[in-house]
Amino acid sequence: MKLVSYLHDGREGWGAVQGDRITALAERTGCADLASFLGSAEFGRRDQLVADARDQLALADVQLLPVIPRPEKIVCAVRNYMDHHQEVLAAGMQRELSAEPPIFLRVWRSQVAHGQAIIRPRVSESLDWEGELAVVIGKAGRDIPEDRAYEHVAGYSIYNDASVREWQFHAKQIASGKNFEGTGAFGPWLVTADEIEPGQPLKLATRLNGEVVQDSHTGHMIFSTARLIAYASTIFTLVPGDVIVTGTPAGVGWSRKPPRFMKPGDVVEVEIERIGILRNPIEAQG
Amino acid sequence: MKLVSYLHDGREGWGAVQGDRITALAERTGCADLASFLGSAEFGRRDQLVADARDQLALADVQLLPVIPRPEKIVCAVRNYMDHHQEVLAAGMQRELSAEPPIFLRVWRSQVAHGQAIIRPRVSESLDWEGELAVVIGKAGRDIPEDRAYEHVAGYSIYNDASVREWQFHAKQIASGKNFEGTGAFGPWLVTADEIEPGQPLKLATRLNGEVVQDSHTGHMIFSTARLIAYASTIFTLVPGDVIVTGTPAGVGWSRKPPRFMKPGDVVEVEIERIGILRNPIEAQG
Repeated sequence: MKLVSYLHDGREGWGAVQGDRITALAERTGCADLASFLGSAEFGRRDQLVADARDQLALADVQLLPVIPRPEKIVCAVRNYMDHHQEVLAAGMQRELSAEPPIFLRVWRSQVAHGQAIIRPRVSESLDWEGELAVVIGKAGRDIPEDRAYEHVAGYSIYNDASVREWQFHAKQIASGKNFEGTGAFGPWLVTADEIEPGQPLKLATRLNGEVVQDSHTGHMIFSTARLIAYASTIFTLVPGDVIVTGTPAGVGWSRKPPRFMKPGDVVEVEIERIGILRNPIEAQG
Repeated sequence: MKLVSYLHDGREGWGAVQGDRITALAERTGCADLASFLGSAEFGRRDQLVADARDQLALADVQLLPVIPRPEKIVCAVRNYMDHHQEVLAAGMQRELSAEPPIFLRVWRSQVAHGQAIIRPRVSESLDWEGELAVVIGKAGRDIPEDRAYEHVAGYSIYNDASVREWQFHAKQIASGKNFEGTGAFGPWLVTADEIEPGQPLKLATRLNGEVVQDSHTGHMIFSTARLIAYASTIFTLVPGDVIVTGTPAGVGWSRKPPRFMKPGDVVEVEIERIGILRNPIEAQG
């Protein structure tokens, strides 16, 4: 099942997508947002809920929101694809693989939805793409063992962890360049975990104005989804709606010679097999 | 004026502290939490609100919460004191000062209140103290010029940015070791900005079981409060209740020879001139 968050008539809602229709589920379930639904007992009877519901909207009539508009935590892996690691070395950067997953945090205010513009800030022209698999937590947990991690996954989505490289490299801590408002594209929807085998390699492609710039698959991940969940949950309790953004494969713009970046007027797409396509135009900060 | 967030009879409230009394202000102002009050027009007439209010509680009868229990953003500066930078060099670490402020993010779930235990996680014994000045945003803003930054400050508080060093150094990104649940002590209260001159150097001392382990002042900061606000607001809109944690001076445990850490049974205090004392016992993760 595909689940989305949206605005309709100025009000936030969420629901299930079938073709070009959305079945609205907020009122029916009493869950104000998608995150709370993912953590509720109602989530287990979602097929029945959709079958019984009558409140339908046209997908074209809503404005999509980031899949989870305000996650409590957005935990992002960095340097988590072997092919990306190799391209970084080839670009002459000195880098060692760490024994534990390197992570950083994004704030929800940096997010945009499918179809919304990714914003190039006034202070830099080095806005780069990073297509990534997003894993959304359903069942809360702390100190989750790796072999039970998938029990905590509600579903999967797509993230474009767009990065302002110049600011990312202001200091060793990359949070600055990874948190610009309007740079974390998240959508179009969540595909529930029952539709994707745990750990199944998924093709991932990023296209800039139709040209393929990343072409890889999630099997190149250095730290698996399960490992990332176990690691993050050692630090803090993961809660419904938390997002694990699992890192990007080879093909980003700044490791090219010369570097290549996104500029206003461009359109960037990230496609992940079995999930869909996340598409965003680029605009300049107003 | 001193403002606190608290639990009383199982309900969240907030109010003004005078001596051993709290004037409860949530119902009177219609602001559900302290963050929204700091951003409201009511904040400007706080003296009158307190003078008119009758709803008083004994400070001893409430359970304090982190000053802002769930900030949208907690932006932390790292390596922001010249005396700390020098001790790091002296400890044999290679470090260069960066031209821009190095920052990382904390999640609100890592926070504890004054008096609550800071938790040493099961996975590490390297729990270290970091006494810091916390700056709380009142007026929202993006791209705030440095010379107008103080207009956006509602007040000041104290943070113990307790750090799990072993996890902090898992990778170059330090977020892991800086976000363990129960490690970000924030309190006891916010002192409104009218009581502290912008940029005024404030004595800062950290004591472990009564022994002074950090003894410095905020004048040693490399990037000023104003600079940190300007920098962070270039990345995203700062909103009421956002917290800028400004970095720690010399004297942390891990740069000592041998390193020294906090253990269950210890009591750590951070005192900042004109603000107060933040005191926390240390407990082991249950």
